[in-house]
Amino acid sequence: MPGNAFGQAFTFTTWGESHGPALGCVIDGVPPQVPLSEADLQGWLDARKPGQSRYTTQRRESDTVRILSGVFEGLTTGTPVCLMIENEDQRSKDYSEIKDKFRPGHADYTYLAKYGIRDYRGGGRSSARETAARVAAGGVARRVLEHLLAPAPLIRGALVQMGPHEVDRANWDWAQVGANPFFAPDATAATTWAGYLDEVRKAGSSIGAVVEVVADNVPAGLGEPVYDKIDSDLAKAMMSINAVKGVEIGNGFAAAATSGEDNADEMRMAGETPTFLTNNNGGALGGITTGQPLVCRFAVKPTSSITVARQTVDRFGNEVEVQTKGRHDPCVGIRAVPVGEAMMALVLCDHLLRHRAQTGAHGPVTPAFDEN
Amino acid sequence: MPGNAFGQAFTFTTWGESHGPALGCVIDGVPPQVPLSEADLQGWLDARKPGQSRYTTQRRESDTVRILSGVFEGLTTGTPVCLMIENEDQRSKDYSEIKDKFRPGHADYTYLAKYGIRDYRGGGRSSARETAARVAAGGVARRVLEHLLAPAPLIRGALVQMGPHEVDRANWDWAQVGANPFFAPDATAATTWAGYLDEVRKAGSSIGAVVEVVADNVPAGLGEPVYDKIDSDLAKAMMSINAVKGVEIGNGFAAAATSGEDNADEMRMAGETPTFLTNNNGGALGGITTGQPLVCRFAVKPTSSITVARQTVDRFGNEVEVQTKGRHDPCVGIRAVPVGEAMMALVLCDHLLRHRAQTGAHGPVTPAFDEN
Amino acid sequence: MPGNAFGQAFTFTTWGESHGPALGCVIDGVPPQVPLSEADLQGWLDARKPGQSRYTTQRRESDTVRILSGVFEGLTTGTPVCLMIENEDQRSKDYSEIKDKFRPGHADYTYLAKYGIRDYRGGGRSSARETAARVAAGGVARRVLEHLLAPAPLIRGALVQMGPHEVDRANWDWAQVGANPFFAPDATAATTWAGYLDEVRKAGSSIGAVVEVVADNVPAGLGEPVYDKIDSDLAKAMMSINAVKGVEIGNGFAAAATSGEDNADEMRMAGETPTFLTNNNGGALGGITTGQPLVCRFAVKPTSSITVARQTVDRFGNEVEVQTKGRHDPCVGIRAVPVGEAMMALVLCDHLLRHRAQTGAHGPVTPAFDEN
Amino acid sequence: MPGNAFGQAFTFTTWGESHGPALGCVIDGVPPQVPLSEADLQGWLDARKPGQSRYTTQRRESDTVRILSGVFEGLTTGTPVCLMIENEDQRSKDYSEIKDKFRPGHADYTYLAKYGIRDYRGGGRSSARETAARVAAGGVARRVLEHLLAPAPLIRGALVQMGPHEVDRANWDWAQVGANPFFAPDATAATTWAGYLDEVRKAGSSIGAVVEVVADNVPAGLGEPVYDKIDSDLAKAMMSINAVKGVEIGNGFAAAATSGEDNADEMRMAGETPTFLTNNNGGALGGITTGQPLVCRFAVKPTSSITVARQTVDRFGNEVEVQTKGRHDPCVGIRAVPVGEAMMALVLCDHLLRHRAQTGAHGPVTPAFDEN
Repeated sequence: MPGNAFGQAFTFTTWGESHGPALGCVIDGVPPQVPLSEADLQGWLDARKPGQSRYTTQRRESDTVRILSGVFEGLTTGTPVCLMIENEDQRSKDYSEIKDKFRPGHADYTYLAKYGIRDYRGGGRSSARETAARVAAGGVARRVLEHLLAPAPLIRGALVQMGPHEVDRANWDWAQVGANPFFAPDATAATTWAGYLDEVRKAGSSIGAVVEVVADNVPAGLGEPVYDKIDSDLAKAMMSINAVKGVEIGNGFAAAATSGEDNADEMRMAGETPTFLTNNNGGALGGITTGQPLVCRFAVKPTSSITVARQTVDRFGNEVEVQTKGRHDPCVGIRAVPVGEAMMALVLCDHLLRHRAQTGAHGPVTPAFDEN
Repeated sequence: MPGNAFGQAFTFTTWGESHGPALGCVIDGVPPQVPLSEADLQGWLDARKPGQSRYTTQRRESDTVRILSGVFEGLTTGTPVCLMIENEDQRSKDYSEIKDKFRPGHADYTYLAKYGIRDYRGGGRSSARETAARVAAGGVARRVLEHLLAPAPLIRGALVQMGPHEVDRANWDWAQVGANPFFAPDATAATTWAGYLDEVRKAGSSIGAVVEVVADNVPAGLGEPVYDKIDSDLAKAMMSINAVKGVEIGNGFAAAATSGEDNADEMRMAGETPTFLTNNNGGALGGITTGQPLVCRFAVKPTSSITVARQTVDRFGNEVEVQTKGRHDPCVGIRAVPVGEAMMALVLCDHLLRHRAQTGAHGPVTPAFDEN
Repeated sequence: MPGNAFGQAFTFTTWGESHGPALGCVIDGVPPQVPLSEADLQGWLDARKPGQSRYTTQRRESDTVRILSGVFEGLTTGTPVCLMIENEDQRSKDYSEIKDKFRPGHADYTYLAKYGIRDYRGGGRSSARETAARVAAGGVARRVLEHLLAPAPLIRGALVQMGPHEVDRANWDWAQVGANPFFAPDATAATTWAGYLDEVRKAGSSIGAVVEVVADNVPAGLGEPVYDKIDSDLAKAMMSINAVKGVEIGNGFAAAATSGEDNADEMRMAGETPTFLTNNNGGALGGITTGQPLVCRFAVKPTSSITVARQTVDRFGNEVEVQTKGRHDPCVGIRAVPVGEAMMALVLCDHLLRHRAQTGAHGPVTPAFDEN
Repeated sequence: MPGNAFGQAFTFTTWGESHGPALGCVIDGVPPQVPLSEADLQGWLDARKPGQSRYTTQRRESDTVRILSGVFEGLTTGTPVCLMIENEDQRSKDYSEIKDKFRPGHADYTYLAKYGIRDYRGGGRSSARETAARVAAGGVARRVLEHLLAPAPLIRGALVQMGPHEVDRANWDWAQVGANPFFAPDATAATTWAGYLDEVRKAGSSIGAVVEVVADNVPAGLGEPVYDKIDSDLAKAMMSINAVKGVEIGNGFAAAATSGEDNADEMRMAGETPTFLTNNNGGALGGITTGQPLVCRFAVKPTSSITVARQTVDRFGNEVEVQTKGRHDPCVGIRAVPVGEAMMALVLCDHLLRHRAQTGAHGPVTPAFDEN
C-alpha cells in the first residue's frame, strides 16, 4: 500500500534520498537463469547520469551500481536482486535559502503538508535522483525481456519537443539520438535546441519538453483488462517520473479531433499474418498489445529550480522570495529520456510475467488463432 | 495481480460482461458507519446510462443498482459492499457479422490473441458497459468522502472538446453541465455540438472528445510518492476508461512550451493560510495534493463502432470488410464524463484512506506547520 | 489492503453476511478456456451445506450457486468469475437475546470494538456462512488445477479427531469419508463419534476437532520463498477458517520432540526419479513443494454457540448471561472439512499461477536436473 | 506477487543470501516523525546473532546494521527505510560435499526443482541468515508501535519446549529469559536443557523446540476479517520462519478436546471496562484482537544440518550419503525466539496501520461502546 514500489510480478521498490549515503532498489520476481552483471546495467545509468554536457546539472556522480544479491555465478537465481548506488557528491552546502522556504513547483510544501517533516537537502526523496534506481531496475528488465522473448523488444526513447520547438518527423533517425546531448532523433532539431537552450540557461530560466518512447517487437496479448491495461500502467509509470504532467498513447489527444473512420487501424493479411495498416492506437487495443510498436509520449514541465526570483512563503508564514543557486538542469526533459525507456521496459517485463501467470505462455506470446 | 481491481485501501473489483446476466463490483475497505442506500448511487448511474438522448446508444437499460452486502440499517458496517446491476437489454441478435471478424479499433483481436477465446456478444468484457460498475462504486466513494471530510470534495466533470470544437472557457458555467445532453459547461458550445454531432451521426461516423474533471475542496497532503503519486494514479484511472488515449494534469502538454518562471505556482499568505497564485500544476506537486483544485483532462478516441465499412481480417485469415449495425454512441466521450468523475472520486477516496494508514490523520488533512 | 480477498494470481474476494440477501465471491485471474459450469461447483457446496444430518445446524439452505460472469459457451474467458448464492433461510427471529450481548467465543465484542457497529443477525459477516463462498471458489480452483496439471492434484480432507477421540490411522480408508456424516476416514471412529456427539448435543454443549487435508499429485517446485512459502500460505488459509486455532504441516508440533536424524526425509532413486523415504516435512522444504503429498492439519475450537448459559456483558456495560437458542452445529469441525479442502485447492491454484509468472513453466512443474 | 515481502501497510522486503556481500530490507510505509537510530535496532540483532554460546553456530558475524535511507535528523520522514547488514564471515570453504547433493530436510532439492539453479553456499537464500533482516525490521516496527500506542505493546518470546522437555509454567519468570542461553522463562528448565543439549550436540544430532510469543498491551480492534485475520497473519508470519512446522493461537490444538463451555472466555465488568475471565482464544476472536494478551506458539523442527550421515541423492541421480561439517545450531529453535518476537511486532504494526486506513483511529484503538 505504500507507494515506493511498482509492478506486481516483477516488483521493484526504490529507496534513498538525494543527499543520503546511497540509493537503490530491490527487485522481487526476477526469473531465474537470466545472465546479469553490473556491466549490463552501467550503460543505462551512464546515459542518465548528470554532468555530461553543459545542458545538464553539474552534480558529479559516477552512479556506479552494485548488485548485492540475487545473482550467482553470473545468473539470476530467482531471489531478490538488490541494487545499490552510492551518493558521492552530497556537496556540503548552505541550505539556509531553502530549508524553510517552499520552492514553487517543488514538493517542499506538499511533503511538509503530508508528513509534517521533510528532508530539505536537495529535495530529499522528491529529487529526480531517485530515477537512477529506476534506470538500474530497467536494465534488469531489459535483460529479462531479452532472455524470454525472441526477438527481444527494442525500447528506444527520444526528445521530440523542447519548448516550442518540435522535431521534424521527416528527419527521424534513431541513430541521431546518441549523437547529440539532447537525445534528439533529428539532427536539425538538435542544432536548433542547442542555441535555444543556451539562451534559456543563460537567462537563469528553464523550459519544458516532450519525450517519446517506442517499443518494437512487442508480442500481442500483453496487458490486463480492465484496470491494469498496458496503457493504464504505462500512463501511471510515466506520470510517476518527476515533473511529468501528461501522457499519451498512440495519437493521444489528437484522437479527440479524429473521426471513427480515420482513427480505425484497419487490418489486412501479410501472408499468413494479420497486420495493421496504421497504428493510431499506439499498439494497444482494449488495454492489450496488438503486436505493433507500443508508442507513448509524455510532457515534462520546465525545471522548477531557476535562478529567477519567485514569490513564495516560508514555513513560518512569512512572504518571501526564493531563487535557486547552484547546479540544475535547464531542461529536465532531456534526462527523462532514459528514465522513460526504463519505465517502458519495467512495464513490459511486469506484464509479460503477469501474462504468464494466467495463460502460461512460454516465450513469445502469439495470437492463438483457429486453423483455417 | 489480475487486472480487474483498483485501489489499495478502498479496493473495488468489477465483474460482468456486456451481455451476461448482470454486472457489478465488490468494494473492500469501506469505512464503517457511513450512511449508504441504493438511492445514493442511482443518480450517478442515471447520468451515465444509455438511451437518454439521440446522441447516445439506444440500448435500454434501467441500470438499477442493488446493494447485496455491507450495509446494515442504513449504515456501512466495514464489510465488503457488493453492488449488482442486472442487464436487461441483452437483445437477442445476429452476431454473424462480428463473431469471427476483428472490428478495427476494438479489442476483438487482442482479446483473442491474449486468451485464445472471446465473448463476442457486444464486446463482452471489453464493452464500456463495465463502466456502470465503476460509476456505482464511485457513488460509494463520494459518500465516504462526504463522511470523512468537511467540506466534502466537490467532484465535477465536463466535456471540453468535441472533435475540433472546444468550449470557450470564458463561458464556463458548471450549472450548464446538467442542462444539455453533452455535459457541456458552455451553452454556446452545446448548441454547436448538437448540430455537429447530428451530422456525424447521420454520416454513420463518430468523433473523439476531451473530458475535464475537477475536484475542489481536496485537502493538501494526499498521494503516495513516488510511484503512487496522486497524479500517477489519476493517469492510470483515466487511461483505464474505454477509448481513453491521453491524460493531463494541470497544464499538461502545454507545460512543454512553458518557461520555469511562467510555470511556477507562486505562493503568498491569505491571512494565516498559505495560498497559490496560480494552479499550473493542477493541484499536485511531487505527487501530493496542494489543497488547490485537482484538475485532470483526458482524450477519448472516436467510437470504433461505425456504420462506415472498414477493412479487416477474420479469425480464419480472410480479408473482409466490417461495419457495425445497430445502436452505438456517435461520441463515447459524452458518457465518459460521469465515468471520469467516478474515477476521480475513487482515486481520492483510496488515497485518503491510504494516507490515514501512514499518518493517522482524522478528517481534513491539513498542513502541519510549525508555529510562527 | 482490506482483508476480504485471498490469493495473488488467482485472487478471490468474498462478500455477504449470514442474513443478507446473498453471498458470493469474485475470482480474478482464472485462466482462459477452462471448462466450467454450475454443476462443477454444486457438489462441493452440497458437501458443506447445513442440515444434512442431526449433527449439523438445521438451517435450511439449498446453497444453489449461480455463475454471473466469466464463462462463455461452457469455457472460462479469462475475465472475472462472479459466483452468487442467495440466502433462503434468513429466518425472521427475535434477536433481542444477542442484539446487545457479547456472546463468549464469538466476534460480537471485537467487531463492535473495531467498527463501532455490527450486524448482529446470525453473526453477520463473522458467520461461518461465509465459507460457502470459499467452497464455491475452491470448486473453480479444482477445475483449473485439473485443466493445467496431469495428473491433477487429488485433494481430500478428513476429520481425524473429535474431542478426545482420534481416528486410528491403521484403519484409514478414504472411501469411508463419504460414508458417514463426520467425514471420518475410519468407520470405527465414526461409530464412536456418533454416540459421543449425541451426548454433546443433548447436553447443549459443543466440542472441538482436528481436520486433516492431504493433496496428492502436487508437482515439485510450488511456493514462493521466503514469506509466501506454500506452508505459510496454507497456515494463513486454514487459520482464516472460522474457529480454527492451530495449523500444522507434516509432523507439525511433534517435530519439536524429534531428532535431526529421525526428522530427515532421506532420499533414494526410484529408477530415474528422486524419491523420499518418509514425509515428515509434509511435502514442503524451504517453503517449496517436494512432489510428495502436501499434508496439513488444523484444530477447530468447539462451537461457541451453546445452550449452556455463560456469563458475559452487554454493550451498555451490564453483567448478563447469554445462551444460544436455535440451530447450531455441536461440532463445527465437521463442516470445516470441505472448507479446508477448498482452501488447499485455492492455495495450490494460486501458487501454480504465481510460479508460472516467474518461471513460465507449462503444465506439470518438474525438477530441472542436469543430465547425468 | 513474488514472495520476499510481508505486510500491506507496513511493508518490508528482504534481500540477500547467506554468503553474498550483504543482506537487508526495505521498509515502505513507516509513519513519519518516529525517533529511529541504528542503536534502536542493534540490540535486537545482538539477541539473534550467532556465536554467543556453545549452543549456537560458531559463525562470527557482528551483524552491524546501517540505516541507508528514510531517517533525517533522528526522525523517520515517511520515505522508505533501507537497512543493510554486511556479511563478514563468508568463510571460504570447500563446498564439494554439498554442491551437488540434496541435504535431507533442507531446501536444496526444492530450490533446484523450482528455479533450475541454486546458490549452494550456506543454503543461499534459504539460510536462516535471512532472519537477521526480519529482526532489524522488527526493531523498526517496535519503535513505531511505541510511538503510536500508549502504553506500547510489550512483545516477549520464550522457548517453552526443547525436545521432550517442556518448561514448568508454574515457574514462568520473564526475567529469566535474558539470563540463560536458551531464552527459557524457567530457570530449572534452562538447567535441564543445558545438559540435554550438550548431549545432542556431542552426538552430532539436533533437536526441535517450541517457541511462545506473547504481546501485552495490544488494543482491541486490530485484524482484518476474513482472510487477513490477526491470527491468520500471525500464522503466516510464524510459518514463514525457517524450520517452523506448526502454529497455534491461544489454546491451539488443545481446543480440539475442549467443550464449548470450557473454551468460552466469559466476560465481566472491571469497573467501567469489559474484561475477560480467561484467554483460551489467545487474544483474538473472529480474527480481531480482544485487548487481551495475544498468545502465539510455534514448533521448530530439529536443525537439518547434522554430522550424522544420512542417505540422499545428488543432482546427477546418484545415491549418496551426506553429512554436514562445520558450524551449526544443535537447536535452531533457540535463535527463533527473537525472530518470532520480530514477526509479532511486524504483524501488529502492519495491522495497526491497516486499521487506521479504514477507521482512522488515532493512538490506542479502543472499543466504541454506546453510552450506558
